[in-house]
Amino acid sequence: MKKLLYLLALLPTLLLAQSGKVFDNLSFPSKILKGDRKFAIYLPPDYESSQRSYPVLYLLHGGGDDQTGWVQFGEVQNITDKAIAEGKATPMIIVMPDANTGQRGYANDVKNEWRYEDFFFQELMPYVEKTYRIKKDKHYRAVAGLSMGGGGSFTYALHHPELFAAACPLSAATGPLTLEDTKAYLEQRNNLNGTAAEIEAYYKRQSVLELIKAMPDDQKKAVRWYIDIGDDDFLFEGNSLVHIAMRKKEIPHEFRIHDGGHTWTYWRAALPTVLSFVSDSFHQY
Amino acid sequence: MKKLLYLLALLPTLLLAQSGKVFDNLSFPSKILKGDRKFAIYLPPDYESSQRSYPVLYLLHGGGDDQTGWVQFGEVQNITDKAIAEGKATPMIIVMPDANTGQRGYANDVKNEWRYEDFFFQELMPYVEKTYRIKKDKHYRAVAGLSMGGGGSFTYALHHPELFAAACPLSAATGPLTLEDTKAYLEQRNNLNGTAAEIEAYYKRQSVLELIKAMPDDQKKAVRWYIDIGDDDFLFEGNSLVHIAMRKKEIPHEFRIHDGGHTWTYWRAALPTVLSFVSDSFHQY
Amino acid sequence: MKKLLYLLALLPTLLLAQSGKVFDNLSFPSKILKGDRKFAIYLPPDYESSQRSYPVLYLLHGGGDDQTGWVQFGEVQNITDKAIAEGKATPMIIVMPDANTGQRGYANDVKNEWRYEDFFFQELMPYVEKTYRIKKDKHYRAVAGLSMGGGGSFTYALHHPELFAAACPLSAATGPLTLEDTKAYLEQRNNLNGTAAEIEAYYKRQSVLELIKAMPDDQKKAVRWYIDIGDDDFLFEGNSLVHIAMRKKEIPHEFRIHDGGHTWTYWRAALPTVLSFVSDSFHQY
Amino acid sequence: MKKLLYLLALLPTLLLAQSGKVFDNLSFPSKILKGDRKFAIYLPPDYESSQRSYPVLYLLHGGGDDQTGWVQFGEVQNITDKAIAEGKATPMIIVMPDANTGQRGYANDVKNEWRYEDFFFQELMPYVEKTYRIKKDKHYRAVAGLSMGGGGSFTYALHHPELFAAACPLSAATGPLTLEDTKAYLEQRNNLNGTAAEIEAYYKRQSVLELIKAMPDDQKKAVRWYIDIGDDDFLFEGNSLVHIAMRKKEIPHEFRIHDGGHTWTYWRAALPTVLSFVSDSFHQY
Repeated sequence: MKKLLYLLALLPTLLLAQSGKVFDNLSFPSKILKGDRKFAIYLPPDYESSQRSYPVLYLLHGGGDDQTGWVQFGEVQNITDKAIAEGKATPMIIVMPDANTGQRGYANDVKNEWRYEDFFFQELMPYVEKTYRIKKDKHYRAVAGLSMGGGGSFTYALHHPELFAAACPLSAATGPLTLEDTKAYLEQRNNLNGTAAEIEAYYKRQSVLELIKAMPDDQKKAVRWYIDIGDDDFLFEGNSLVHIAMRKKEIPHEFRIHDGGHTWTYWRAALPTVLSFVSDSFHQY
Repeated sequence: MKKLLYLLALLPTLLLAQSGKVFDNLSFPSKILKGDRKFAIYLPPDYESSQRSYPVLYLLHGGGDDQTGWVQFGEVQNITDKAIAEGKATPMIIVMPDANTGQRGYANDVKNEWRYEDFFFQELMPYVEKTYRIKKDKHYRAVAGLSMGGGGSFTYALHHPELFAAACPLSAATGPLTLEDTKAYLEQRNNLNGTAAEIEAYYKRQSVLELIKAMPDDQKKAVRWYIDIGDDDFLFEGNSLVHIAMRKKEIPHEFRIHDGGHTWTYWRAALPTVLSFVSDSFHQY
Repeated sequence: MKKLLYLLALLPTLLLAQSGKVFDNLSFPSKILKGDRKFAIYLPPDYESSQRSYPVLYLLHGGGDDQTGWVQFGEVQNITDKAIAEGKATPMIIVMPDANTGQRGYANDVKNEWRYEDFFFQELMPYVEKTYRIKKDKHYRAVAGLSMGGGGSFTYALHHPELFAAACPLSAATGPLTLEDTKAYLEQRNNLNGTAAEIEAYYKRQSVLELIKAMPDDQKKAVRWYIDIGDDDFLFEGNSLVHIAMRKKEIPHEFRIHDGGHTWTYWRAALPTVLSFVSDSFHQY
Repeated sequence: MKKLLYLLALLPTLLLAQSGKVFDNLSFPSKILKGDRKFAIYLPPDYESSQRSYPVLYLLHGGGDDQTGWVQFGEVQNITDKAIAEGKATPMIIVMPDANTGQRGYANDVKNEWRYEDFFFQELMPYVEKTYRIKKDKHYRAVAGLSMGGGGSFTYALHHPELFAAACPLSAATGPLTLEDTKAYLEQRNNLNGTAAEIEAYYKRQSVLELIKAMPDDQKKAVRWYIDIGDDDFLFEGNSLVHIAMRKKEIPHEFRIHDGGHTWTYWRAALPTVLSFVSDSFHQY
């Protein structure tokens, strides 16, 4: 009978052996953002038993959430475990940084005083790619995210096409549509302490439509795009205009409008396709 | 034994209930278009065995096809039979008129000399709704179509919201985006024999965006809309702008962008949802 | 009880309403071949209840069989019924002519005295396309066959690319590889009564490799090809060389080598894919 | 209760039995190639819990990849775990050596200065078969690979039929078709520093067609062959000619042409059949 109890006590562990592991409260010190920065990480089921290295997906939360959003609301572990078990996704490491503490968002601010984007590329990425068995070149790196994190996915991959194989903005904030919108946005965030030149520079680096307009021809196929938004989402205009702009400029991209709004139900439904899409990029053809 | 008899008595109905009938080469004389006009029709499985009347879907073909397009390429019979058998669509009559003979298209031309739209509403609709057991009021009438026929679905339902419960433009031609486009389009079709006033009138009645702009507030919920187009379709711009315009004007509509191009593969995949959507309209809530 | 008997008597008919119909002993008089010629035909499930017209597949038997081969050994009815019911094939008419009576084969002989190919195009095709509701243009016509009938599929579609949308040679006899082979073949069939010029002409019109060599560039995409042969088939050489020749000349074609030999087991397994492939051609994209 | 205990006692084994382990960055020193050589290895799920020895599959990557190719792009772990769990493959060890570092390829070069093939047989094979619990005789050894690694599979098994039970070249480079091709190939690789005799010797040991021609009759059944290539693969000619040559020489072999090109999608789809085929060889009949 004791043996029976022992085995039963062992069961959860044994069953978890099929599962990846999530840590949602890790941190490391950032010089750029002057303090400890949190992140969550998903390690695939065979991470501990094998010795191989893995591709990486940076998965960005939306405004109001933090590094735990994709873990708690997005069910990243169950969905990714299932996608890997079914062969729809390749084993990968998923890094989910906190962009809620201090100033909110994935951008450097208008005066470059709060430099989250610099933190991401100069500190976070090197830190996790050194700490975990992550393959370090573009071919094995992707970025995805929702809403504000969809905006981050757009701008990061547009600023650094040399670093990402794929980008998947979901229900994305596509940044200001005009310079005027930029000013209004910055005023709203009490952030309009920039000069006219700084504001224009901010607009040019945060507006997805401007970034597409400025894209050199030889960059058009640098990143594989999967863009998805619900037909009831309030961000319909920017995403529809991005689709038109990418089609007119002949930038290959997958674009979807499914039934739904700006909800976690929508994003949980979208995540398996995102994992499958980035896996295709990691797999080669 | 009684139970057995009962089941056996039921058998013919169950078995015969499975296959609708298609006629793809019917015709009747039109005064407006001065000659015989062809159409195809789908009658639901129980049409002959019952005495009831049915809702009707007008299903419009694209440029280059004729009344047989949805029959041969669209597999309307198999798909509708299946949707009805699975309970996803209600039994309905589907009318597929030829808009390829004489002048191509569903519109009255710029000088109102070729009057296909008048033919549709003044001759075709009365003829089929008298000849077959079709319910005659708006609540039981829908229009759908692809490409040029998607354009027809838009304009017919926007011109006559009092006649259609639902409209489903697939991969739709949304008409000229500007008055200049209208002139270019008419020149291309050797049809620019209208006065400036006639051309502007044509533009206002054929441009989906203009029709949306002109829609009175009390008409916004008159028609249930299901609009669907592939992300690789060349008609991306008009449909994306229609989505934006409808959202901004708060016209309720379902809008979908799936993976695919301007192909029959796309439309065959879309047809079950169209049948299901119009059935919901025919059912009330 | 009488009612029960009546219903039970009715059952087979009712159940057959889901099935196509096969006639395997029809015939009509041929002037060219001087006598009655037999053929079998498959009519799709909705042929009698509907009034629409259908695409046509000419399905050719191999040496030693006759018009009943695909019916009895090939299970054409069950396989086609199933493919249509599952939506993998579009409803079509399948015509299976006898090429066993008189001289065997699908070709005109070396002296053009026995003119089966002329019979096929000048008499059989017009007869069946007039007698049954068959769509009459290239877009809705395909040819397939096995062994000797695979050879017929090759030569008919290569001689008349303007008549066939698709051709599917299975385990095909690809005709003589050289002029010397031609002579040996004709001698074997006691048919070598032709002049040198006649024999060379026969070679040029019956050798698939010669026909591919002679194909004009603007014909390369005229016919959609699906070519399939088992890895244990004795006709491996001709088919492998045809694949190489078509690849080198950039003639688009699907080519398959599956596990198996020159057997009805192979051809029954191949038929669903053939039906699906020709349906794609009939469907447009 | 005893039955329950028994089942529970079985549980750990059953649950732990599900995942193999992959190491993708191992290495050992080579005298022949003058430096450390990398390899990846797959150990089957029960490797650690059991004490038994296993058969071995040498799985060779293509040009441009390295020892991680089959791990990352080929999904060797998931696919092999699944094949073993489903009983379609026997537990085996899979060794994937790097043939990308230094000179690329699996051959000794023309002057026998870079001797990868010697390294493979004299150093790699002894090293891994000593280091891991690998069965050491021919009956339990197979080789497979893709493209350049398909070429390696051909030449290794043709040079050493006494060492391999089975060989599975996928989308294989079949080596130069002629002596002239050999010279052109060597020039292209800046490798033409050999004498005429050396070049001819290189041709005779690297051309699969020459190796087949030279095969003694008593070797025809020494190796079980599974050869697979897509119909859109650019290597169609060599593989088709190998099929013809093997058929004519009556060398038993499985040969497949499926739908597809020179892609990882093709090779991932092929891998389960390869594992099943080599397992049949390891099983005896």
